[in-house]
Amino acid sequence: MYEGVVQDLIDELGRLPGVGPKSAQRIAFHLLSSDPADITRLAEVLGKVAEGVQFCETCGNVAEQEQCRICRDERREPHVICVVEESKDVLAVERTREFKGRYHVLGGALDPLSGVGPDQLRMRELLARISSDEVTEVIIATDPNTEGEATATYLVRVLRDFPGLTVTRLASGLPMGGDLEFADELTLGRALSGRRAL
Amino acid sequence: MYEGVVQDLIDELGRLPGVGPKSAQRIAFHLLSSDPADITRLAEVLGKVAEGVQFCETCGNVAEQEQCRICRDERREPHVICVVEESKDVLAVERTREFKGRYHVLGGALDPLSGVGPDQLRMRELLARISSDEVTEVIIATDPNTEGEATATYLVRVLRDFPGLTVTRLASGLPMGGDLEFADELTLGRALSGRRAL
Repeated sequence: MYEGVVQDLIDELGRLPGVGPKSAQRIAFHLLSSDPADITRLAEVLGKVAEGVQFCETCGNVAEQEQCRICRDERREPHVICVVEESKDVLAVERTREFKGRYHVLGGALDPLSGVGPDQLRMRELLARISSDEVTEVIIATDPNTEGEATATYLVRVLRDFPGLTVTRLASGLPMGGDLEFADELTLGRALSGRRAL
Repeated sequence: MYEGVVQDLIDELGRLPGVGPKSAQRIAFHLLSSDPADITRLAEVLGKVAEGVQFCETCGNVAEQEQCRICRDERREPHVICVVEESKDVLAVERTREFKGRYHVLGGALDPLSGVGPDQLRMRELLARISSDEVTEVIIATDPNTEGEATATYLVRVLRDFPGLTVTRLASGLPMGGDLEFADELTLGRALSGRRAL
């Protein structure tokens, strides 16, 4: 509807997740009146991403070097590995400041209907790490949804055979600050079955 | 919080209007798993926008050539000019399919507090067009808000001196499909004072 590069820009922005046609137009006109240096910076960082982002050789987290910051950190406990689906989950766990071990990023969750089996995830790398390092505990921190639960079940089955290895799963239950009344029955059911003695 | 280029991407995306930190992260991780060709296309179009977008020499609309599509179109009535604030307003009027004249894009509205006076808008170009072309009507289609109304008032005062020129303003009133009960008092007042004989 617009001419030339403006419409191209609106089209490309509209392809991004969560950016509808109205937002794409608003962002495009914002950029049209922005400092060209700002636009160039965004274009350059996109160019770098298109060339490929580096992932940690050990854990699969996004990284600047061959190893990510956490895997390079000598102070992190090497005997505990927290298994997550994506890099953003690493960040979520880090924000708790409760975890001093290391991570393993699977790169997704098992989803056979979408063609994601164990070979599409970084499962082999995880097993290799557990075999070579002296890992004593694997914390399964996949999402509490169908795919994440399926991945957790698969992991438990595979990891059961390692001698001396404890496999744990993040607790399910009521979210803190929430309201019991508004909890869905699945969450409340998990909170009940996972109740703790005080 | 992320390492390297991923955090740069999230930062740059987060600067766009309407894109908060969560959306920026979601878009960034979407791009990380996208086809590099798609990312490159977005980067390239941004690069073109940074180099500068062309505006129509006559009306100030975004254009691919020296003249925009509408100014090049011989079938458009040259005697009627619809004055709007932005290029997106041209598109809004075009969508009505009711207007067969030409446009003039001011590039904003008068807003002295933000330093936007007549010299910051394409006012001089408008007066030149009215003087040279045989313009018989100017339709003021600035936004019905404080700045738009101020701009309309200014235009009426300036254009009053042109002999044989009719100056009109878009009607204010109840939006179609709306509900009288929920109309704000300003809109309903305008609808009353602008009532038409049937």
